[in-house]
This record gives sequence, structure tokens and C-alpha cells, in this order.
Amino acid sequence: MAATETTVADACVAAKRAARELASVPTEAKNAALEATARLLEERADAILEANAGDLADERAASLTDALRDRLTLNPQRVAAMAEGVRVVSELPDPVGEELERRTLRSGIELRKVRVPLGVVAVVYEARPNVTVDCAALTLKSGNAIVLRGSSYAERSNGALAAVVREALAEAGLPEDAVTLLAGGGREQLGELATQEDAVDLLIPRGGEGLKAALKDVATVPVMYAAAGNCHVYVHAAADLEMARRIAVNAKVQRPGVCNAAETLLIDAAVAARFAPAVLADLAAAGVELVGDERARELAGGVEVGAASDADWDTEYLGLKMAVAVVDSVEEAIEHINRHGTGHSEAIVTADEEAAERFAAGVDAAAVYINASTRFTDGFEYGMGAEIGNSTQKLHARGPIGMRELTTFKYVARGTGQVRE
Amino acid sequence: MAATETTVADACVAAKRAARELASVPTEAKNAALEATARLLEERADAILEANAGDLADERAASLTDALRDRLTLNPQRVAAMAEGVRVVSELPDPVGEELERRTLRSGIELRKVRVPLGVVAVVYEARPNVTVDCAALTLKSGNAIVLRGSSYAERSNGALAAVVREALAEAGLPEDAVTLLAGGGREQLGELATQEDAVDLLIPRGGEGLKAALKDVATVPVMYAAAGNCHVYVHAAADLEMARRIAVNAKVQRPGVCNAAETLLIDAAVAARFAPAVLADLAAAGVELVGDERARELAGGVEVGAASDADWDTEYLGLKMAVAVVDSVEEAIEHINRHGTGHSEAIVTADEEAAERFAAGVDAAAVYINASTRFTDGFEYGMGAEIGNSTQKLHARGPIGMRELTTFKYVARGTGQVRE
Repeated sequence: MAATETTVADACVAAKRAARELASVPTEAKNAALEATARLLEERADAILEANAGDLADERAASLTDALRDRLTLNPQRVAAMAEGVRVVSELPDPVGEELERRTLRSGIELRKVRVPLGVVAVVYEARPNVTVDCAALTLKSGNAIVLRGSSYAERSNGALAAVVREALAEAGLPEDAVTLLAGGGREQLGELATQEDAVDLLIPRGGEGLKAALKDVATVPVMYAAAGNCHVYVHAAADLEMARRIAVNAKVQRPGVCNAAETLLIDAAVAARFAPAVLADLAAAGVELVGDERARELAGGVEVGAASDADWDTEYLGLKMAVAVVDSVEEAIEHINRHGTGHSEAIVTADEEAAERFAAGVDAAAVYINASTRFTDGFEYGMGAEIGNSTQKLHARGPIGMRELTTFKYVARGTGQVRE
Repeated sequence: MAATETTVADACVAAKRAARELASVPTEAKNAALEATARLLEERADAILEANAGDLADERAASLTDALRDRLTLNPQRVAAMAEGVRVVSELPDPVGEELERRTLRSGIELRKVRVPLGVVAVVYEARPNVTVDCAALTLKSGNAIVLRGSSYAERSNGALAAVVREALAEAGLPEDAVTLLAGGGREQLGELATQEDAVDLLIPRGGEGLKAALKDVATVPVMYAAAGNCHVYVHAAADLEMARRIAVNAKVQRPGVCNAAETLLIDAAVAARFAPAVLADLAAAGVELVGDERARELAGGVEVGAASDADWDTEYLGLKMAVAVVDSVEEAIEHINRHGTGHSEAIVTADEEAAERFAAGVDAAAVYINASTRFTDGFEYGMGAEIGNSTQKLHARGPIGMRELTTFKYVARGTGQVRE
């Protein structure tokens, strides 16, 4: 009942078959399946929580850190939030069938470029059981089948949730195999999944660097990697310094464990003497451990700032720590960011339009902010409804991966007997 | 003078530096470099032909097939055609800076999604020296730097052509390192190029299956593979049979050595008895060797049709050979194509709108043709001006790879001090 008991290859082939069917299903049928999922999540809340309690009581969960244990834990509010999330997805516009371009070729052929689903999307994830439902909803609405591979210690929770979605699919007359949770686990299974080239169109790893490294070695299917977010806030000479304080503190402190939080603060030398003591005091007061280059430490005005090592500029702390450097120009800031950044989210604070333009053009990142916090890089904030991850790749999808990013296109050409001369 | 004498890593780092500069260069400067390239190609035609003669006289060229030797050979017309091709690219619209989306977020932030160059594009190619210039022109106009790695037996020709483009870049005040030809060669060099993750944003192999297999094993940079084109023409029950004959013959015969030529003809059982003898006679008369399934052979009406093996359905002949099968329905045609096709170009001939729609929706390919030859899948025919290759991948680019496909985007967000709550 819980996880589907088949081999990885069989599961992927079944998913591919389901994907072919799902590709041309009308929006209403997909929405009906999503509505049924939301309703069943509510109806089956007790069974889901029981499965989750089983996972939490299992010896495999005994070694989890408090943070991971919290991520694994479900409660009535979290189940209700999942159902609500599914309803939000059902209200989002269906990306499939969107006409991206249309033109008449010189041959007289009518060429249309039409958005179609990718096919089979595989998602490998850790801990949080809600990912099962969130990802299934996004892939289903975008006409894709999904193969899910969660953590073994979340097996019962994920199984109960996947069973709910499969039941909802059947209820709506859609193929159950559009959502498949792999049973078992282990590195071997990961390798098997990552090499199903004939069936899997995209693999998205949602997890730490270890997972990504393991995939890089073996994957033959296309993988969309979400690189770490080593994000910067650069306070320019012409910055509104009050605004700069708010943005720097928000980017670091509001939720330090996420990829769009800032890790390094760059302060222009022209304002460093005035600005550094204030912002560093703010950060220290918010519990942020500070390390800096020589100039930043000199200008700290009594705030304790440790010596930054070379490695600090390349570190995503994912916590209450920040590196601070003083730079002499927009160009130096750009150079620092392009050398140390991961291409995620970068901010400049300035009232100088030309500096803003130079920074936006020169920084090589998915998102560049002018006078706003880096924390806004997010599918929901961007009006994409929801996201399945965040890409720092340049190909296919950059930034939040929403439903559109789970699609491709096909050219449909209509002729009247045209042949090539 | 010819090829740049540096290590692969040095060349890629220099290309990356050039790419950063090129990313924000105005269209006029890029066009000036292209105009200078075209002019210098004409002015230096004699020197280019001399270099080419050197390659042709070299012992490395002695073992080439006639076809490869022809591809390596330059003459005044071919040099003039290169110059003309560069002028065409200079007249194409600059894709860089195009605003793809703009919206005001609920936070009040103004979000723009803007087209930007990828950065450094590497192209690995065989034989034809004109690829040096064609690819350099497309990458330059789309704001990218290019690292080229040609065949060792085309070294002098490629070197002379790359030197012309670099001279033109310098003349236009642009960084010469935007176009770099790697010296030397060998599998080791290929592996080195394919692992320059910090510098190379995209690698495009233009060559046979051996090249692709070699890359799949080692590449850590993103690679855009152009799979073989095992394309089909399906003649539906409701086809205009005269039109179907023209399309089937054109798709196979007009230029059989290219990836959008058809390899298999599928004939609906409802019209097979009437249609097969006529079309097979046409194909045989055009010199096409035919193999077929049992029904096709029975209905061939005296035309010689050999027995197709299982392997035939999966073979890209790239020559005057075609497999023929009789199918019972649109669904069977779709299933055959999805099982054996490579997702390149697929055609249906029918006057039945519903059958056309079902085929277009059900076939999983970059391009689907209704009543037209598969041969139209081409950047120039599609109005994209030119192409650097043809992708059968689903991610990033599908179908012809033109200048737009050599770009990515970045989000530029303008705020007034917004922070995340």
C-alpha cells in the first residue's frame, strides 16, 4: 500500500506510460485530481499522522538531529497546510498548451511553438514529507508524471501521502502511475534512478551537497542542480544608509538557513567609516557572528569582528554568521561576487542609477536586486505560485523552478503538401 | 598565428574574461566585428585557400573518405559563402537585453526577466572549416565567447579562419579572446575541455556518435547533444495520396545524409494496398533500397522490398535506404514512432483534422509536421536566421539551436528598500 513495490526500472517505465496519457489530459481532470488530493489529505489526516508517528518512533529516526527531526514531524496544521498548498496549485493556470510563438514560414508552413510537459520528472529529497505532496501537485498540474525517492526514515509518512495522491488520481480517472514513490532506498537505488535515460526526462535533487556529488558521478539523465546560495549585499557609496541597514540585516537574519540568505556584506570604502559601525552593531545585536577583512575590522567601531580566512568568502554559512569586506568600487564588488558567488541572488543598495545598471549587468547571477533584500528569490514571491526548487544553472531554468520550468515545447508545423526544394 | 598556443584551461579562463566584457557590448560593436570578419574573409581568401591546401596535402588528410575530403575542401565560392553567412548574422536582431517578462510583485518590487548571454560556449566539430566562422558569428552576436576545437586535419584552415575573426574583433575594439581555437587535439584535450566547469557554460558537440559517447563519459560541463534523427512519415487513411507520395519521397531523397531526412515510412492499412505500390515504385526509381515488414512486402506490387530486421526500425541510414511498415491506426503509428524515434522530426499526411491533432499531441518529438516534409526542421527555414545545431533534448533548447538558444536570462529586481517579513 505505502510505497510501490517494483524495481526502479519498472516504476520509471510505468511512469512514462502514465506521462504519455497525462500529456493531453484536460485541465479540469488535473484539477479534479488535485481537489481530490486536498480532500483526501484532510479525510486521512489521522492515518497520515499515525504513519508519521511510526517513522518518528523508528530506530532509523533516533540518530536525526533536532532540526531534521522537526522537518520529519507532521501535525494537523502541517497536513492542513499541504492540502491548502495543493488547492493553490489547482488554481494556478495550466502551462500546457500555451502557444509560445506562431509564424508563417517562407515555405507557407504555419509553425507553432507549443508548451508541452517534460514527461517524467524524478525528485530525490530528504526528510520533509510535505515535499511528496508539493512536488506531486506541481508535476501533475504541469502534465508530468513524477517518480519520488524520499529518505528511508520517512518511508511510512511518504508512503501514506503518495497513496493519497494515487487514490485521488484514480478517483479523477487519471493513471495512478503518474505518481510513484520508490520503495527501499540506498545509494544503489539512486544510481539506478539516475540512469533511466529512456524514461526519466529530468531529475531534481533536493538535498545537500553530498547528494549532488553522488549524482554528478553517476547520472546519465538530465539533472537540474540547485547550487548553494553564497549571496552578497553590496552597499554602494550612494546608498541610502538606513535602507542599507534594513536590507543587510534582513538578508542575513530573517531566515538564515535558506539559500537566498546573504552570507557576505560588501561595503563601499566611501561610506565604510560611517556605515560599518552601525550595520555591524545591528548584526551583532541580532546574534550574528562577524568575520571581516582588515579594513572592515578597523572600521567596526568597537563591534567584535573576527579575521576572515580565504575560505570565508566562499562559504554558505546557512546560519547566523556573516563575512564583511570593504571594496573600492562597483567594479570591485562585481569582481568579488563573480569570483566567490554561486550565481543565486545578489543585491546592491544605491541611489545611483548608473551604478545600479552596471551592477545588474555585470553580476552573473539568477537574480540581481537593486534596493531590496536577496530573500525575495522564491517562486511564491515571484508570482509563480509555488516552486519545486531553485536553479543556479544557466540552461533551461534559472532561479525559481515553477510549473513552467517543468515543461518543454514542441514545434507543430501545418502545411499543405510542402516539400523542400 | 594559427591556433592559440595556450593550455585548454588558460584558453577557457581567457574566454570567460572576454565573455564578461562582451555581455554588455552594444549591438553596433558586435555588428562592426561581424562586418570586419566578412570583409577580411574576402580580403584574405588567398591565404585561407593556401592554408586549406596545406591541410589537404597533409598526410593526416590522406586517409579521409571522399565525403570527408569534400567537407574539408575550401574554394573561392565557399569562402564567399562564409562571408555572406556572417553578414546575414549581423543583420539578425540582437537577442541580448530582450525583456521576456515584467511584473510588479506583491512586495512592490519591479521584476524584469531579461535575456543575457550564456557566457562561454565550446564547440567541438569535425571536418568542415566553415563551422569555425559560422559558430563564431552566432556566438559573438549573442554576446558569448566561443572556444573552438576542430579536427587536427583541418588545423591550418581553422587556424586561418579563427585568425581572421580575432583580427576583426580587435579592429572593432572587442576582446580577441572572445574567439579561441584550441591548438593540438586528441581525446585528452577533449576531456580537459569538457571538464572546465568554472569557465565553460555550454559545450556543443557537432559530430558522430563516437564523439558524443566520448563526451558522455567525461563531461562535467553542460552539454547539448544533438541525437541522431530517426524520422518517420506516416501516411494516414485520410491522406491525399498524391501529396503523400511527394512528401515521402522528398523526406527520404532530397538530402538523405542529414538528420531531418526520413528513415521509415509508415502506411495506414486502410490505404496500403492502393498507396504502397505507387510510393515504393517512386522510391525505388529514386535509387532507394527498401526493407519492410511482412505486410508492406506483400503489398509492394512487384517493387523489390527486403525483409526488415528489428534493428532497421532503430537505424538512421543517412543514405538512400528506407524501412516501410504497415500500421492499423494513428495510435499504432504514434506508438511505433515513440518507441523507435529519436524525437527529432515526425510527419503525418492526412486530411482528417482529428487524426492530425492526435498525432501532433501524441508524438514526442521536437517537430511534428502535418502535411509537410520532415526536411523543414532547420534554423534558416524556421526563420531563426541560422543554427549552430539541432537539439533532440527536451531541456533548454529543442529543435534548431539559434542565437536565442545560446542565451539564458536573469531576473533584475528593483525595489525601494523592500525586506522580507
